This record gives sequence, C-alpha cells and structure tokens, in this order.
Amino acid sequence: MMMREREQRTVPHADPPTASRFLEVRDLTEALAEPLSAEDQTVQSMEDASPTKWHRAHTTWFFEEFVLGAHASGYRPYHEQYRYLFNSYYDAVGARHPRPQRGLITRPGTYEIGEYRRHVDSAMVDLLQSGTAPVVAELVELGLHHEQQHDELLLMDIKHVFFCNPLLPGYGRHVVGRTAHAQPLEWISHRGGVIEIGHDGTGFAFDNESPRHPELLRPFALGSRAVTCAEWLAFIADGGYTRPELWMSDGWAMVQQQRWTAPLYWLPEAQGWSVFTLRGLQPLDPAEPVCHVSWYEADAYARWAGVRLPLESEWEAVATDTPISGNFLEPDVLHPQPHSGADADHGLFGDVWEWTASAYSPYPGFRPTAGAVGEYNGKFMVNQFVLRGGSCVTPAGHTRPTYRNFFPPSARWPFTGLRLARDA
Amino acid sequence: MMMREREQRTVPHADPPTASRFLEVRDLTEALAEPLSAEDQTVQSMEDASPTKWHRAHTTWFFEEFVLGAHASGYRPYHEQYRYLFNSYYDAVGARHPRPQRGLITRPGTYEIGEYRRHVDSAMVDLLQSGTAPVVAELVELGLHHEQQHDELLLMDIKHVFFCNPLLPGYGRHVVGRTAHAQPLEWISHRGGVIEIGHDGTGFAFDNESPRHPELLRPFALGSRAVTCAEWLAFIADGGYTRPELWMSDGWAMVQQQRWTAPLYWLPEAQGWSVFTLRGLQPLDPAEPVCHVSWYEADAYARWAGVRLPLESEWEAVATDTPISGNFLEPDVLHPQPHSGADADHGLFGDVWEWTASAYSPYPGFRPTAGAVGEYNGKFMVNQFVLRGGSCVTPAGHTRPTYRNFFPPSARWPFTGLRLARDA
Amino acid sequence: MMMREREQRTVPHADPPTASRFLEVRDLTEALAEPLSAEDQTVQSMEDASPTKWHRAHTTWFFEEFVLGAHASGYRPYHEQYRYLFNSYYDAVGARHPRPQRGLITRPGTYEIGEYRRHVDSAMVDLLQSGTAPVVAELVELGLHHEQQHDELLLMDIKHVFFCNPLLPGYGRHVVGRTAHAQPLEWISHRGGVIEIGHDGTGFAFDNESPRHPELLRPFALGSRAVTCAEWLAFIADGGYTRPELWMSDGWAMVQQQRWTAPLYWLPEAQGWSVFTLRGLQPLDPAEPVCHVSWYEADAYARWAGVRLPLESEWEAVATDTPISGNFLEPDVLHPQPHSGADADHGLFGDVWEWTASAYSPYPGFRPTAGAVGEYNGKFMVNQFVLRGGSCVTPAGHTRPTYRNFFPPSARWPFTGLRLARDA
Amino acid sequence: MMMREREQRTVPHADPPTASRFLEVRDLTEALAEPLSAEDQTVQSMEDASPTKWHRAHTTWFFEEFVLGAHASGYRPYHEQYRYLFNSYYDAVGARHPRPQRGLITRPGTYEIGEYRRHVDSAMVDLLQSGTAPVVAELVELGLHHEQQHDELLLMDIKHVFFCNPLLPGYGRHVVGRTAHAQPLEWISHRGGVIEIGHDGTGFAFDNESPRHPELLRPFALGSRAVTCAEWLAFIADGGYTRPELWMSDGWAMVQQQRWTAPLYWLPEAQGWSVFTLRGLQPLDPAEPVCHVSWYEADAYARWAGVRLPLESEWEAVATDTPISGNFLEPDVLHPQPHSGADADHGLFGDVWEWTASAYSPYPGFRPTAGAVGEYNGKFMVNQFVLRGGSCVTPAGHTRPTYRNFFPPSARWPFTGLRLARDA
Repeated sequence: MMMREREQRTVPHADPPTASRFLEVRDLTEALAEPLSAEDQTVQSMEDASPTKWHRAHTTWFFEEFVLGAHASGYRPYHEQYRYLFNSYYDAVGARHPRPQRGLITRPGTYEIGEYRRHVDSAMVDLLQSGTAPVVAELVELGLHHEQQHDELLLMDIKHVFFCNPLLPGYGRHVVGRTAHAQPLEWISHRGGVIEIGHDGTGFAFDNESPRHPELLRPFALGSRAVTCAEWLAFIADGGYTRPELWMSDGWAMVQQQRWTAPLYWLPEAQGWSVFTLRGLQPLDPAEPVCHVSWYEADAYARWAGVRLPLESEWEAVATDTPISGNFLEPDVLHPQPHSGADADHGLFGDVWEWTASAYSPYPGFRPTAGAVGEYNGKFMVNQFVLRGGSCVTPAGHTRPTYRNFFPPSARWPFTGLRLARDA
Repeated sequence: MMMREREQRTVPHADPPTASRFLEVRDLTEALAEPLSAEDQTVQSMEDASPTKWHRAHTTWFFEEFVLGAHASGYRPYHEQYRYLFNSYYDAVGARHPRPQRGLITRPGTYEIGEYRRHVDSAMVDLLQSGTAPVVAELVELGLHHEQQHDELLLMDIKHVFFCNPLLPGYGRHVVGRTAHAQPLEWISHRGGVIEIGHDGTGFAFDNESPRHPELLRPFALGSRAVTCAEWLAFIADGGYTRPELWMSDGWAMVQQQRWTAPLYWLPEAQGWSVFTLRGLQPLDPAEPVCHVSWYEADAYARWAGVRLPLESEWEAVATDTPISGNFLEPDVLHPQPHSGADADHGLFGDVWEWTASAYSPYPGFRPTAGAVGEYNGKFMVNQFVLRGGSCVTPAGHTRPTYRNFFPPSARWPFTGLRLARDA
Repeated sequence: MMMREREQRTVPHADPPTASRFLEVRDLTEALAEPLSAEDQTVQSMEDASPTKWHRAHTTWFFEEFVLGAHASGYRPYHEQYRYLFNSYYDAVGARHPRPQRGLITRPGTYEIGEYRRHVDSAMVDLLQSGTAPVVAELVELGLHHEQQHDELLLMDIKHVFFCNPLLPGYGRHVVGRTAHAQPLEWISHRGGVIEIGHDGTGFAFDNESPRHPELLRPFALGSRAVTCAEWLAFIADGGYTRPELWMSDGWAMVQQQRWTAPLYWLPEAQGWSVFTLRGLQPLDPAEPVCHVSWYEADAYARWAGVRLPLESEWEAVATDTPISGNFLEPDVLHPQPHSGADADHGLFGDVWEWTASAYSPYPGFRPTAGAVGEYNGKFMVNQFVLRGGSCVTPAGHTRPTYRNFFPPSARWPFTGLRLARDA
Repeated sequence: MMMREREQRTVPHADPPTASRFLEVRDLTEALAEPLSAEDQTVQSMEDASPTKWHRAHTTWFFEEFVLGAHASGYRPYHEQYRYLFNSYYDAVGARHPRPQRGLITRPGTYEIGEYRRHVDSAMVDLLQSGTAPVVAELVELGLHHEQQHDELLLMDIKHVFFCNPLLPGYGRHVVGRTAHAQPLEWISHRGGVIEIGHDGTGFAFDNESPRHPELLRPFALGSRAVTCAEWLAFIADGGYTRPELWMSDGWAMVQQQRWTAPLYWLPEAQGWSVFTLRGLQPLDPAEPVCHVSWYEADAYARWAGVRLPLESEWEAVATDTPISGNFLEPDVLHPQPHSGADADHGLFGDVWEWTASAYSPYPGFRPTAGAVGEYNGKFMVNQFVLRGGSCVTPAGHTRPTYRNFFPPSARWPFTGLRLARDA
C-alpha cells in the first residue's frame, strides 16, 4: 500500500489517539530523516519515488488539510502554496505540483520543513488535548497510519537515491551481524472450505480490507517461510532469467528491456554477489529472504519451482491465527533477516512483503466513503497485485492479517519477496 | 482473447474436423480479405494491430508449423523464412519478426500469400482425408478456432487502418437499416450461492476456461441488455469525461493524456455525433449498444450509474442457461445492433464483448499443457480484464458461455461494450 | 536537396518547357515505380522517407496546385482532399496530412494515383501546347526539377523499405558487372584567391544557388576521386568507429546510441562484408566509392586521414571547369561505380553526393521569393550540411557545379559519400 | 561557449598567473554559490544544466587533473572517485558519471565540496608560489578562464532551477532600479572589403578564435544596440509566434511542440508581462534588451523586421575597435539593462550574448592541440551557432572582440539576445 500514498476510511475505533501517541508517530518520521543531509532529502531519483523532504511535508499537510483546516477553529494555513506543493493526489483538494518534479523544489528547505512540522504539531497537540470529536479522532488515526506508510516509503525511496550514487553511501552505519541459517522449507496445510476474510471492525483498518466476507478455498498448503537468497541463486543458476517459458509475456518483455539478471540491488563482484542495503554494500547472505523482486520475478520463480504464489485469501486464512511478530522497522536493522524455524510466526509478518497471486480488486460489497479523504479509496484497484505481511521497514504495529498492500507487477524498489503455495 | 493471438490446449472432442469444415473456416478468412486492396492488406496502423496479409499468413503458418510440419510425413515448408516472418510469439519455435515492423513487409505480396494459403490448404485436405489421429484432430480444431479469432482481429484491425485515413473509407458498402428501439433496462436477479463455472469438457474449449470449479456468489442482478449509446450520451452530458472522482487513477491519467471525450470512432459533427463503422461514417444510433470503450471507461460509467460491472462468474451464471444467439459476424452488418426486448438471449452473445470486473487470472487448478502450442497458455494473465459474450465481428459458433476473452484495460479498438450489475 | 522536398525560384530561362519534355520527365517517374508492387508503393519505413505512391501523387499535386489551379482557366481539382493528402509542407496552401502517417494511406491506391497522374498530365499538355506565359513556363520548369528530385527520393526511400524486410528483396534484377580498379588518390591543387561562386543566371537553378558572389579561398588541394570502400575498410580496421577523439561530440553520441560500426547497408557475413543495393545483397567491391555514410562519419574519416572535408566553395572552384558527366540514374546500375583514372570529370558528378565542411547557410544577399512556391526557400538553412555533385540515382541533367544539396549530419539513407581536401 | 564546458589551447602569454589572481577567480565562484542553500546546489533541473555543487567540484577537478596531477610532484588526488564524478566529457581521462544523473549525487555534500576546493587551492597556491614553467602557467590560465565560464553557467543553471519552483524564489534580493530609456535604433555602417578576424596572439584566447585570417565582407550596417523588449512586444503583437513564414522549418516545429509564445522566463499576468530574473519576478521593462531567446526566435525576428542577423565576421569587424565595457557579472545586477545612447560601446559587450547568422565552424587552418586538454577542441563545431559579446552574468575581463561563444539554435536558458544587421 506504499507506492502511492493512500488514505482510507477508518472503521469505528474505541480509543481516540492521544497527544503523546501522536507525537510518538510524528517523531519517528523525524528520527528517520535525521541521518540524512539537506542534499539527501531533496533529490527524487525516479518518478515513483519522492524526496524525504516531501514525505515530511506531505504527511504534515495531511493533518493541516483534513484535521486542522476542517476542525480547528481559527487555524490558518502555514503557507498558502504548501497546499499546492504537498498535495499528493487529491483532486478534490485542488491542483497540485506534478509528481515527477518533486525533486526540483529546493525551497522550502529542510529547515523550513522542520518549522512547518513543528507548527502543525503544536496546533495538533492543542486540538488533541482539548478533547476530540469521534470524526476528528478517526481522521487523526488515519493520519497517523498514513504517516507510518510514508515512513516506509521514505526508507524505500532514500535507498534508491543512494543506489544511484556511484559512491554507494549507506543510510546507517550500524551493522547487525545475526548469523543464522534458514529453516528447511516445510508446508503448512489448510483443508480449504468457506472461510471469512477481511477486517471485522475491531480497531483500525483501511477500507480496502472491508467488508469481511466469505471465500471458498480449495485445500492448499503454504510454505513455512519466505523464499531465500540461496533458493534464488539456484533459480538464476538454472537460467531463470533467460527462459521465456517461465515468464508472463509482459514480464519477459521487462526482463529483456531492463536487462534483469538478478533482484534489484544485487551487484556482481569478483568474489560473488553483493547486496546494496541501507547500511551500504554487504556480502549476500544466502539465508536471508530474497528481497526487491517484482511480481513478474516472483511469479516466474514459482513456476520454475513447480508450484505457485498463494491467493491473498489463502495467505490470510493461515495468518489470521498467527502472532503478529517479526522483523519490523528497527533503525539498527532495516534489512531482511534469516528466518529461524523456532519462530511461531512463520515469518508471515515483517522482513519482506509477500507477493500474492491476487490482482488488487475490491472486495464484494466494497463501498468508497464520501469526501476528499475517501474520494479515491479504490482508485488504484487496477494493474496491481496484493502483497501481504509487512517488511523490515514497516513500523511495528502498522500491519495486521487483513492488511492489503499493493504494487504494480513491475515494482522492485519496495521491500518485496515471496512465499510459495501449492494445491493440496 | 483477441489482442494477442493465442492457441490453447483443447479438451477431448467427439467429432474430428472434416476437410469441408476446414475449408469453410479457411474460406471465410479469404472472403473477409476479398474487399481489401493489396495496399489495404499491407499496412499496420499501430503496434497492437497487424496487417490483413499477416493475419492470412500467420493462420496458415499455424497449420504448417504445428500440423503439417509435425504430422504430415514428407511435408516441406513452403518458404524457409515464412517461419520467421509469420510466427506471432512462440519462443519455442524460434526467432520471429518484430511485431511493430509487420507493416514494413511489402513482399511476399497479397498474391504470394494467397499461393501460400492454397499450398497449405491442399496439403491439409490431403491429410484430413487420409484419416487423422486424435492428436492431429485436436490440433486442427485448435487451428480452426485460432483462425476464427484472427477473423475478428482482421476486421478490428482494418477498421483502425481506415480510421487513420482522412478519407474515412468503408470496408463494405451495404448499409443495413434496422430501425429499432432499445428495450428499457431491467434487472435479471440471481440469488447467488455456490455455482460451478468453467468448461465441462463437452466440445471444444480453450484451456483458460478450465478446470470447471465452484464459485461462491452473493445475490446480484444483471442488466437485461448492454449499455446503449443514448445512455452513454447522458454520461458525457453529465461530465463523465471531466470528473476524476468517477475514474480509476490510471484511467484518469489516460483520459487526460489521450484527451478522451467519447468512445473511439465517435466523431463530433455540426449536427451531432457520427460514428465510424466498417461501412464508413454513419449517424450515431442512440439505441445501439455503445462500442469501442475501454475498461476504464466502462468502469467509470458503472460508477457514475451508481452500480458496478459484473464479475465474470456472475455473467456466466446467467449466461449458462441462455441460448447462444445474437448479432455475430455477418458481412452485411459488422456493427452492433439495438437489442429488442423480444430476444430471449438478453443480447449476452454478439454485438459487443462485455467488460467484466474480473482481472484475467488463472482458474484454481489451471495447468498449462506441454509443448509450443500450449507453451504460453497463461502468459497473458496479468494486467488484463476478462470480457464475455462475443461481438458483431465474432464468427458464429466461435463463442460459448464459458469463453474468456481478455484485453488490457486501455484497449478501445476491439468491439467492446458493457453491461451493468448490482448487488441484490 | 533531397530530404525535404523543396521548390525554389527559378531564374529567367530561354527555352520554355515543351509538352514532350514534360512527358519525358513525368514518364521517368512512372518507369521508376513500375517494378514496384502496390504493396511496395504504400509503405513508409521511417519518418524521413515517403511511400512511392506518395511521391507519385505529390509531384502531381505540385503541377495541379501551382500551375493548373493558378493558371489553367476552368481547371477543377481532381479530388478535393488530395490537396490535403499530398501537400508536403506548404503552410500557405493550407493544412496537410502529418508526414509520419503517410504510410497509413491505403486509399487512394496505386491505380487511382495513376489515374490522377494521367488526368493532370493531360491538362498540362493542353496548357503547354496552348502556349505558356513566362511565369507559367518558369513554374513548369520548377515542377520538372522538383519531380526529378523526387525520383531520387523515390529510389532512396524504396531502398530503405526493402532493407527493412528480412528477405532483402531487390528493386531490380539486372546486375552490371563492371570490373575496375580505383585510381590512386592524387591531389588537384588550387592556388586560392578571390573566386566567384553561385549560379550566373544562365539556365535553370534553384534560388539557394544565388546570388553569384565572390569568396576568398586559401590555397588548397582536392582529392582526385571519392573515398573508396577499400579506404573505409582501413578506417574500420584502425578502430575508426571506436575512437572518440576522431569524432564530433554529437557524432560520437550517435555512434554509441545507434551502434554504428560501418556505413548503412553494410552487412557482415561469414566471408566478409556484403552490401545491400537496389539489386539486392552484393559482395562489397573495395574499388567503389563508399556510400551511405553520414556527415559525422565523413568528418571522422577525414580527421583520421589527417586532412579535412572541402568547403563547398573549394569544391565549386574545381568543379566549375569540369565536364558534367558521370554515373547518373540508369535503371540497370543504381549503384556507385569504381572511378577509373581516365575520366576527366574526377568523378565529381554522379556516383555519390559529396559531403562538404560547409554548414548550409544562405549566400550573402540571398532573398526568398514571394508566394507559396517560394515561401520557404531558405527555411531549411539550419542544422544541415551542403553536399555537392550528384549520385547514381540523380537523373541525368538535373545537377550542375553550383547545385547545393543538403542533409542533416546524421543522414545515411541518401547516396552520400565524401572526397578529401587539404590545405596547400 | 557555455553549454558544454570547453578547454582550449592557449597562445603564448606574457604574465603567468599569480597566486592572488588564482584565488581571486576561485573566490568569485564561492561567492556566487554563497547565497545558495545545500538543497539549491544539489538539483539538476534539465539535462543541459548542472548543479551548482557540480560546477564547484568540476572546476576544481580541472586543476587537480590537468595541473596538480601532471605537474605537482607528490600530489595525491583528494578522492579516488572524484575523477569519475567530476569529469565533464574528457574521454581521454577515462569513464565519467552520466551527465543526466548529476542531480542525483547527494554525497559528497556542499560542505565536502568546499573542503575539496580548499585542499586543491592550497596545493595550487604552493605550486604557483614555487614558480611555474610556461606549460603550467598556460594550463592555469586556461583553468581560470574555464572557471569563469562555469561562473556564468552556474548562474544560468540556478536561474532555471528556481524557475521550476512554483514559489519562484530569487537568487538575490537587491533590486537595482536603473530607470532608463533605450536609445533609438541607428545603423553603424561598414564598407566591407577584406578584413582580418580572429585572435592575434596577444594575451589569452581559446583556440577556436585562431588562426587570425582574412574574410571578404560586403558593405553592411550593424544596429547600434540590441533588440529591446519593447520591440519584441511588437513582434508578438504582430503574430510573430503564429506565422510559419517567418520561421526556419525546424524553428516552427519547435514553436508548435514547445508552445512558445514569448521568450523563456516571460510570464503573462493580469496586468501585463512579468519577467523571472535572478532577483525573482519583476515587471517587464520595455527598454531592456530582450533576453533568453533561441536562435530560431532571433532569426524569425530579424526576418519579421525585414533585415537579418549579422555574420560573426561583421560583428567582429565593428567590435574590434570598440572599448570592452558594459554590464558584466555584478552580484547586485545579474540582469540586462537598457542601453543608453551615451555609451560608446554600443552595448556590444555585456548584457546579452548576441546570436549571429554564422554556424559554428572551424576557422580555416584551425588545428586542435594534442592531449586531453585539447583533445576535443573542435568537437562541438556542428549544429551550433556563434554568439558574440558577453552577458550580464559573464565575469568582467573574460570576453573580448574575438571571443566565440556557441549554443544550439534551440537554447534559451543562456542570457541570449540579438542585434540586427542589414546589407548596405
């Protein structure tokens, strides 16, 4: 749910967000930006990505536009043109700066963006401490989840910026040396039948997770962990990137046009593969989940392995009873880690988002909400595939079994991997 | 199933094709090409389309490559390089001429292509009359359905060629004046539940129609006829092409980039809309089913109308008990006709292919077949949507309730329309 | 003067064109088109080129628009929309069909174009036989030279069409086997000083050849013949296409982007280079003048050879006293021939157009003429270089020492070669 | 001579550059960068432009590569990869970072670039104070003129960066209010004949200014000042941008494709035209020389005015006896100023570079020098036009009557204007 920023209708929610929770989320964004220089925060390395500075401003604009502007009496916008500069895609809000030119905005600078954030935070804290109506609480909750999504985008995008620099700088310097082996692949069986998927209304969820509804599943089995780099090396060695029969037609065209021979961020070196990470260039760890593969690659891999990708309903059927734990955003890690068999969560959450076989479509009975916040709830439900789980750059607490992330099948710069499935 | 030529595994079949049936199908292709000059048959007006001449040769190559070359002892290819020139996309067969350059091949000319067809037909008739093994019968059956698909492509593609000519020439001159009114829109209710969809193995089917499997449907209702031009005019008048909230994000980008303001082939004139048809420019008939709309437009229209597009399973649930009759390929018509309420078929078959809400994905348990013919059975199952029914340029007998046609959501040059659905 | 069709002001002329001379020029065009099928005549292989059919129609339109329409009382245009379809670039005449879409016009067909030509020829013969005013005579003379230019374009363009076909068909079948060796390279010295160049007003000339004016030359020497394929092979062998220091910056970018490794139409084969000609693929004859090289290549070659390209004034200073003879358009040849030392013309005329070091600029005092014919006389005088001499596809009688042909420095599909020069 | 950085052979020079002169030039660059934030200095707004930071580093690399690396014993490069990052186009020096990606380099940051400059300056001062061999003096002189060229580029490029920002920030805040009227246009006559142009070897010059050589001129007259904005407004009002007959064919295509309706940086507002300057948006001053017009526009204007652009030889013939004074780079101005008739320099120098009718070609006898510095002296002599004079962002002392600047005919972001000429 990362590529384009999305905001969606929340379901009723018991605990309204407090000022301290608000600041906790907001401060994480600033903490993530802190190691980045003014230059780092300004550049846009490709159209799909955005500058750090823009993420910091856009998440702020969200609170200003939808909460303060609408619900804080007497609030005046910090700067008239920020509404134009930092709107992402809300047509109902008005015109906006073209996405591909976000990297040309040198002013306001990082310092002014910081001022902007502090100004809005102060007004928000006042508002939250004065007691909030349910509709406001709901919008704030939405804004906080929106900001968490942008935290992940910020890290994805800056990784790509650094990769475009021949000096290959690292975002962080701390290296976590967790030596581990990947568990052997096993299969989690499920007997199929009619199951319920989708969010049940308890706690926050985006509206694309609803309504909860029955799905008819055939018996199937899900891999006990994500596909590893070691397994991906076998795919490469077996000609995975050179055999058209393994690929979707569009995927094969992409392989040839983009000259793909390995996942994004893999670099061949004299002594073997290295991987560019947020900590700079590292030797490839075969035990790690493979990351930064497109849906086309995931699909080809599954075909090569003689199995398939799971449906999102299959994934959710297994995940719904699984504890939500795993390798989420930790400033000292920010990279997938090998999955040890001891973990009860099967690595379903964290490390890498897992591509599914399901095109991103509305659930039956899905209804968009009114107004600018919900104006476009479903407008990305075409030409994208659903991913499930969460990644090593997803803030802890942001994901859940019903969470539907999505990207186009060619996307590689998110932290995307895969898990296999097969008919029982 | 038109955009890229596809050949797929057949299921066992009772009656092997006879020489006379073979020639009947083959002769239709030649009859369709007959009104076209050598110049008409040579040109490629866009990358997605192919020259008439190429369709005539490629369908012939199919029999030469997969039937005669493999199963007729002593058969020698007509021309060594035709294998290169007229292969569409079979990687297993070898290299092929680049698709975007099909229109640069002036030689072989239309006459030589005719010779080529006669040569292959003669060898095929010999083969068929000598008695055919089941595997051959199956390939011939496949080849004949393949050729029927290309008959539709041929007409779609030449229509676009003529539209690129400022003189707007017509393919045929006969005008069928069928004055009629469209029936009022009614709703066909269905109570939902678990139903079976997919082909049951009786008679020919493409492999993407199998396996037959259960689907769980919610109660729904399907429109009693396709959306008409009159209804589309109301959509336009209500700002349909200018209101972003009606569109998918990708669709809205397309509207702006391509400056869409009406379906393809609609031309504004002083006295109102005209429509370019295979019989040249005609006044718009409001009673006709709207045609040449993309999925993006169909989806936006349904949203504007407050309902939705049907799932392919919903469409099939209704169609499975409906007689297969309608306005199929008739050289004197070649254009959608108003649907009179008297027709028991609800216009489900013929006139226009109907976009569904279903992304084109494999049925559960779908398995591709081995070999070049089936090499890529599923390789187009991404970034496309399923259409159902058949059109006024589909050869009669070519379609059925389980038939899954598919195109990318931006395609407008096929004969594509829509039918509404809603939750019950 | 080939790339874009140009028509230019004539100077006063003694002998008005007769009907028989008119028909002689017109018939040559038809004779050149005669070996081409309807398919061949319809295709446009790149934006810079035009279909044969279009050349036949456009040259006819020229007489209809500028002569018959303006000066034949009662003449009515053959077809209202031909004015739109066959205008090349005359803005004053009105809107026109976009150049890149000339190859999509299947109708009118070749037969209708023939009818159109006969209709206009008939009216023109009537006009010419009724006696013509000087202004008409001048326009007819211009139209005939215009048509001769298009004869050369027609051959250049169809050669490229055939080259795009993997079957590599030939335009003609007759092979002229003229075995010869190239003469050794000698240097024709000129002492420089103030000389006059440009047309002196005797006989026909295009207006870019005037006014005649003095130029100040330094002493120089001109090569006694064009550069040969043998010499070009030495350039290739010495890394000519791999050494950036030999190239203009833009030329080097072109080498890398287009992956140039030899002149256009040279094909590497197991036993050495072959050359695609209007007679099909032929073994490379080292004695021939090298042909189908861009200005960038010619310039790089000269730098490699330690000398330079001649200025157009230097070329004309030598050519002005040279007999106009050489290998011009002959249906049985249509390919450059080795230059034997016995020829007094030094091969200055015919075989290949010779790139000069002179950017195409107006002569001092150049004045465009009024009206549509002369509207844009100088509008191509930017980003092009002057070529001199004439080629093996230039109609005999069409060229002269003052003739200024021009193409962009990247053009390779004209019959372009080079001759060296050096300071004395 | 601005678009691509060029370094050229110097002629023998009397006074070797001193450390203080070296630092004076170097300090100007830093002073120009000083008002710019780290963000401002990092962005590349189009492929033709470069980030401020890159200019600062590249000019430093020049001294490191060609002076210190070659002539300072024991000097070690500051950073191994800077050689790759900051080489502009010297193939002989080795591989280099792709030009279009200069704006993606966030690290080294502006601070590190400052450190790099100080390191090199210190080594250079040591070298210069230890006494320099003539060859070194010559290279240093070249490096200083190279740096002055980049000072102008830096200002041109940052102006474009700011123009891409909807906030339209200004580089400087000081507004110089010089109220003045433009003098009436008069004509400076010259009787023509053989004159000498090119550099005579006294003092520094780039090698494209040599050799000095005779040119034969016809009698002509040159405008007494540059074309003003008031005159340009008359051109616009008379349909200058809508009449194809005024334009070169390529220029007209550009007008239509880019939708030019006025010079770059002119913005229509309710009350009339405003102009974006390095001091932000300002009301248009009709008395100012028009600036930021392409050669295509200058050429069309001259045709509209019934005259022409001067040849570079004509310009030099007049300028050679004119004092070199004018509005050069002054941090408080940085914008063209109205030319008062009292100035003896006719505004030939400073304010705006003046397009000439001369394609940029080598002077007769031009010879490139050996080695990487001179490797490509002439490699831009194609598809460009010569400009003369200097502009309001050219450092004082950098220009002279023989100076040949050049840009492609479509360039608008340099400070380019025009002066008219006519035949006498």
